[in-house]
Amino acid sequence: MTRAFNFSPGPAMLPESVLRQAQATMLEFGSTGASILEISHRGADFIAVAQKAEADLRTLLAIPDDYAVIFTAGGATTVQALLPLNFAAPGQAADYVVSGHWGKTALKQAAPCVDARIAASSEAGGFRDVPGRAQWRLSPDAAYVHVTANETIHGVEWQNIPEAGNAPLIADFSSSIASEPLDISKFGIVYAGAQKNLGPVGITVVIVRRDLLERAGQPRAPIFDYRAQAQAESMLNTPPSWNWYVLGLTVQWMLEQGGVAEFARRNAGKAALLYAAIDDSGGFYRNDVAAAARSRMNVPFFLHDAALDKVFLDEAKQAGLLALKGHRVLGGMRASLYNAMPEAGVQALVTFMQEFKQRHG
Amino acid sequence: MTRAFNFSPGPAMLPESVLRQAQATMLEFGSTGASILEISHRGADFIAVAQKAEADLRTLLAIPDDYAVIFTAGGATTVQALLPLNFAAPGQAADYVVSGHWGKTALKQAAPCVDARIAASSEAGGFRDVPGRAQWRLSPDAAYVHVTANETIHGVEWQNIPEAGNAPLIADFSSSIASEPLDISKFGIVYAGAQKNLGPVGITVVIVRRDLLERAGQPRAPIFDYRAQAQAESMLNTPPSWNWYVLGLTVQWMLEQGGVAEFARRNAGKAALLYAAIDDSGGFYRNDVAAAARSRMNVPFFLHDAALDKVFLDEAKQAGLLALKGHRVLGGMRASLYNAMPEAGVQALVTFMQEFKQRHG
Repeated sequence: MTRAFNFSPGPAMLPESVLRQAQATMLEFGSTGASILEISHRGADFIAVAQKAEADLRTLLAIPDDYAVIFTAGGATTVQALLPLNFAAPGQAADYVVSGHWGKTALKQAAPCVDARIAASSEAGGFRDVPGRAQWRLSPDAAYVHVTANETIHGVEWQNIPEAGNAPLIADFSSSIASEPLDISKFGIVYAGAQKNLGPVGITVVIVRRDLLERAGQPRAPIFDYRAQAQAESMLNTPPSWNWYVLGLTVQWMLEQGGVAEFARRNAGKAALLYAAIDDSGGFYRNDVAAAARSRMNVPFFLHDAALDKVFLDEAKQAGLLALKGHRVLGGMRASLYNAMPEAGVQALVTFMQEFKQRHG
Repeated sequence: MTRAFNFSPGPAMLPESVLRQAQATMLEFGSTGASILEISHRGADFIAVAQKAEADLRTLLAIPDDYAVIFTAGGATTVQALLPLNFAAPGQAADYVVSGHWGKTALKQAAPCVDARIAASSEAGGFRDVPGRAQWRLSPDAAYVHVTANETIHGVEWQNIPEAGNAPLIADFSSSIASEPLDISKFGIVYAGAQKNLGPVGITVVIVRRDLLERAGQPRAPIFDYRAQAQAESMLNTPPSWNWYVLGLTVQWMLEQGGVAEFARRNAGKAALLYAAIDDSGGFYRNDVAAAARSRMNVPFFLHDAALDKVFLDEAKQAGLLALKGHRVLGGMRASLYNAMPEAGVQALVTFMQEFKQRHG
């Protein structure tokens, strides 16, 4: 079998050129005499890799100088657990705007260490839309306001995240970072697990406005202190160095492809193509998300007859279209269209869907 | 340049056959049509990888059935931060036996969330020995007793870790796990970052007696709950799946080589060879650790004249002997002799050291 179009929500498809570079350095990295996987994170060779990854990421995302960039392990969920410890006083309120499963997770991770409040939620409507700014009930004393930029399971994305007011806005961009231009300065913190749009599994990026690092937070282990982590350039302990390296390769690839403006163009095109195929299927396929909140990255859809789901997945796999099964929370199908998914992959999916409908309609 | 003998303390040398397998699956894993780096951690293909890694690790280390094995991100330092949250009540005492830098780190990580006490320390003597059992001052109410099996920087290793009494013994085996047979049942918890003896950077193993998972611990985020993590088979969130895979390859390699008994034999031989070269150098090289506490894994040594350090490192690198620079805490040199370091590497180092002495003695 050859490499297929992989619609996995994450770990997700990577550019073949990135994989080939990772492959080429698996036994020997440059003139080091060792694999990139075997060299010390504190040696000059890896430090150069780490610094280039950060510099390139700063270029790609236009990260202002007054923001630190932390590379860390543990995924976005661990970041969610550490937000109150670093940025809220004991017992302080924190506002959560919930537009899907991952917004709920963010709140659950914070709840043991902060007065976590649901400022707004679209759960009553089945997470088929974002809760508009008019619905937000913000706490005057909140340490921060948390939003999920794109909900990977429910396929709900903010087109423009509203201003929060006085409290800094913290946004989980795990599944949409680098998919289009973003004004980082609107946020106190932007964070993202890398395994969707930034490259490999096993590394997470936290972009944090430096003044927030001065907050006292709550008693916590030194390893959980983001201020110390920023000062130590993300090397308080051994970082996931190989994963950091592959993130750097992926960021470099995005820059070479034209940066986030180019990916915004491609991603809009890919999403439009797939949503049109769903909407024009006469009800054979269905996506229930409000038009203005439809995700460009994750497109959940349902067949008109769930009895066809297994056949659809089997035939898709035979056609080289992988990982289209929807999350167990929703069922149905889901196609993830991150930056590394080429338009040809979406074209192939749409063609398959049309042919499948003809065969089974 | 070809692959050299890499004495890095971690990330460390890996078996070439493991790297070749990781390389071979970088574009396509089996018949999945995708890289091992791109497939879902919840799909059948990766679940099989994860389960085989655990089963092989259980075989390699003879882990009893009443111990859970958790695969996690964040390194041993993160485990140290989570120990009090999971296994101590708020304000409860925990005893730390400190035989080097990493024992101090373990205590520092725990201190914000527990009454962390130094039960014994060999710091006054410069960490050149372990503090013997007679020196331990244990707290009657301690939640646990923590020891560091092998100190990577100071080159101090317990030959036999003493019994602690009533409180469960928690041991950091990051730099000596799988280096010789170990009776896991003597411990409440054994944990280790993988990047020394278990394979790649970016993944950590926590082996925990199941009854300890019933402890209430302290308020903490769900992602920091080891009981939940064990129940979820280490998939509360996206694990560092690629790193887990390479750990599995490394464990399989260790089994194929003959298991921990065989590595105990090899490691004893390698360490004896290097210590003999140091001790027989007439003072040109020096190791200050008490004979009975000398580490088989990490051998710090000093040249009689520190002015020669840079020449030694430069000439060693030219000879294909990498990463011999000592940790900044101690200075001098350090050779790490983990399982993947072949005897030929230590022979080459010893020969180089003898020739260097002849040239510069």
